[in-house]
Amino acid sequence: MTQALEKHLLGHAPLSNTTLKEFTSKFRYKEFLKKEYILQAGEICDFEGFVVNGMVRVFYLDEKGNEHNLYFATENWWFTEIDSYSNSKPAELFIEAIENSEVLLIYKRDKVASFEKFPELETLFRVMTERVHVNLQRRMIDNLSKTAEQRYQDFIDEHPILSQRLTNIQLAAYLGISHEFLSKIRTRLARAK
Amino acid sequence: MTQALEKHLLGHAPLSNTTLKEFTSKFRYKEFLKKEYILQAGEICDFEGFVVNGMVRVFYLDEKGNEHNLYFATENWWFTEIDSYSNSKPAELFIEAIENSEVLLIYKRDKVASFEKFPELETLFRVMTERVHVNLQRRMIDNLSKTAEQRYQDFIDEHPILSQRLTNIQLAAYLGISHEFLSKIRTRLARAK
Repeated sequence: MTQALEKHLLGHAPLSNTTLKEFTSKFRYKEFLKKEYILQAGEICDFEGFVVNGMVRVFYLDEKGNEHNLYFATENWWFTEIDSYSNSKPAELFIEAIENSEVLLIYKRDKVASFEKFPELETLFRVMTERVHVNLQRRMIDNLSKTAEQRYQDFIDEHPILSQRLTNIQLAAYLGISHEFLSKIRTRLARAK
Repeated sequence: MTQALEKHLLGHAPLSNTTLKEFTSKFRYKEFLKKEYILQAGEICDFEGFVVNGMVRVFYLDEKGNEHNLYFATENWWFTEIDSYSNSKPAELFIEAIENSEVLLIYKRDKVASFEKFPELETLFRVMTERVHVNLQRRMIDNLSKTAEQRYQDFIDEHPILSQRLTNIQLAAYLGISHEFLSKIRTRLARAK
């Protein structure tokens, strides 16, 4: 079950077989059905997850009941509620399977213990955290500087397969626009071709 | 010159005196005048900076010549162009002193060497990176879910001193709105009091 995870980790750093086997043995395999919650706001997120199959989304539910998608995680992507995880405080975000999904979860205590035993894992996770940080910064800049139409076009160019797996509603809630507005953009772009 | 930095680092992790002195000795003290660039887009950002005094901003200049502020760093805050720094590629962002500033810079090669010698520094920087990540995620959620007026109100509530040091133009470029619109918000809020 941990084959994809092992391959993913080795793609980032040359880990010894001992480190790799011991670390991946700490992960627990779980299946979630489409629409099942992996984490609900208010709970403490004491795990980090890796998607083997399927897709999850991390989202914020505002006071008016509107959902805002922070990100999607598909095969070989990580997910967590970083604020809750890092600071052991109640989550503000939900994590939901939006396809039937197989995931590997590692609990914080196991990750911390592994970092202490194998410092090279700490380096690896620092590098991966920086990568996520770069993506988030890129997205923040795009949100400040680009129109919704440009951001939509970029998203489908950069994630052609992912965008086909998402509903209009999910994608609109990621772009920060209504799905009616997304439909308008799609119609306009289709006409322009 | 490294007193503030030492205090800041000790506030995050219990470092030995040896680690602390050797690590902080790698930083180079620099002064920048208001409006001076610390980094320009196109250059490789091979350093990370710590503000001792003053304020810098990290911003994106779009094709139309509009500036978008990603963040401000004041006393005891770090700054870098993370994408350029992590991936050794040309910067997409500018870093500018917006007050006369005293900063401590550490070059990547010195930081990497310090991490190898003192693994506890790697832990410390992973934790600080996670903290920045949490802030950026918080901001992304706010941008998706809140109006500009709410975000302005939150900003002045959370950063009362910083907001007084910023011009309308700088703050508007951070909130992702025009400064004319920010003026309207300010007038409306002042009337509502």
